Amino acid sequence: MTTDEIFNLIKEKKSFLCVGLDTDVSKIPEHLKNESDPIFTFNKAIIDATIPYAIAYKPNLAFYESEGSKGWESLQKTMEYIPKNVFTIADAKRGDIGNTSEKYAEAFFKKMGFDAITISPYMGRDAIEPYLKYSGKYSIILAITSNQGAMDFQFLPTAIDNKKLYEKVLIRSSRWGTEENMMFVVGATRPELIKEIREIIPNHFLLVPGVGAQGGSLEEITKFGMNPKCGLIVNASRSIIYASSSKNFATDAGSEAYRMQQQMKNMLELHHLI
Amino acid sequence: MTTDEIFNLIKEKKSFLCVGLDTDVSKIPEHLKNESDPIFTFNKAIIDATIPYAIAYKPNLAFYESEGSKGWESLQKTMEYIPKNVFTIADAKRGDIGNTSEKYAEAFFKKMGFDAITISPYMGRDAIEPYLKYSGKYSIILAITSNQGAMDFQFLPTAIDNKKLYEKVLIRSSRWGTEENMMFVVGATRPELIKEIREIIPNHFLLVPGVGAQGGSLEEITKFGMNPKCGLIVNASRSIIYASSSKNFATDAGSEAYRMQQQMKNMLELHHLI
Repeated sequence: MTTDEIFNLIKEKKSFLCVGLDTDVSKIPEHLKNESDPIFTFNKAIIDATIPYAIAYKPNLAFYESEGSKGWESLQKTMEYIPKNVFTIADAKRGDIGNTSEKYAEAFFKKMGFDAITISPYMGRDAIEPYLKYSGKYSIILAITSNQGAMDFQFLPTAIDNKKLYEKVLIRSSRWGTEENMMFVVGATRPELIKEIREIIPNHFLLVPGVGAQGGSLEEITKFGMNPKCGLIVNASRSIIYASSSKNFATDAGSEAYRMQQQMKNMLELHHLI
Repeated sequence: MTTDEIFNLIKEKKSFLCVGLDTDVSKIPEHLKNESDPIFTFNKAIIDATIPYAIAYKPNLAFYESEGSKGWESLQKTMEYIPKNVFTIADAKRGDIGNTSEKYAEAFFKKMGFDAITISPYMGRDAIEPYLKYSGKYSIILAITSNQGAMDFQFLPTAIDNKKLYEKVLIRSSRWGTEENMMFVVGATRPELIKEIREIIPNHFLLVPGVGAQGGSLEEITKFGMNPKCGLIVNASRSIIYASSSKNFATDAGSEAYRMQQQMKNMLELHHLI
């Protein structure tokens, strides 16, 4: 998928919402637990209810791996079920030496058919390059994450120019690819930094987690982060998929996705993008 | 497994060798490819041939994930096959926000029964803590990796005290756990740094990749890295498991593991540990 195609999807749905499929078997409604594949049954209902409002889905690998090979089957079925005209992100946070990254790229882009994968930058350029070879696929590099631990290393000022580690990550890794094969994770819990980030990477799409359960503000993110192609994919996981645990969980998830989409529509109009 | 138990294993086998199970279906001998589970069949033969010389096995997740849920089944079977009295490391390089790390810990420590998992430090403390709660299990934090890309961020000097990023990682993260639940990855391709690293973390075990196919020297690593409990787990993957691609691949892998074990025995004797 090109960035133009992503932007067309955003304009069509008047939304830049990504639904995070952090599907925890211990949290899904009781009545689904007797199904042969409760995770897939849950995901299917969530996708059906949210698809009018979402441009992307982001399964979080940990929640599937904790179920072993059965979890991977649920993930594969989920990937087959998600319509081909939305963007799919493997939230896998991988990163390893070249020959290993090649295998991860094969796993997520070829075997599973994802459009994008999240990647930790700690191991540097050759850990990222194998992913960049796939046309129309994206490496989404962690820059600033939404958790408290982001403060431990990402904000360390470096010697010589005093730039923080996450700035070095943005500056260096953006040179290794283009806007057509690279995006960056910037947590919604620190919207004030998005303005500075846009000075380094004006054109890249940002994947923004941390709205919803983690408390980030959509208004502030769009104020500083939006660019002429929108440039934002905002993720909400728990606030949507666990909107309720009743029999109506899917309808309630749909309502929450709709509520967010309406806010996003307002932002897109405000910025004259639709 | 406690560090005393690991040290006992080292003394008993006169070895600190870890065999990396980077099992690539495209590289395994032709005659195995018609088996119902070629990856498991290959691993089984490699384990049988190397078990007298190895104290640990380290499956690299990428090679299993590239085969989808079938690959995870091969991994589960491999884990069931590895004798319980050796150390097992999931080379997964995970790292995510707390609720996600909890799920990864569940996947690798509980579901799959690994003793340890490799973790990227980029997301900081709360990405690592969920793993530390498991008694007798280890988080193996990336400090210096063996690839060229290690130079991109790990060696960036930080402001104020001029310490490099990997030194900050060692100093800070070693405070979050103990020698009984934490180890560090230090690539064999930079043995000259191990001396300085031992000043920061004298007692932790180091997982040392990069010997073998990547060219690191065992002699230099032990010279600077060995401590009173040995403190080293040295990994070789490709140089052992692909020692040959003939019908005798397992015997040849065994011979290569034996060759390394003999070197390690000499080093252990030289340092009066056996």
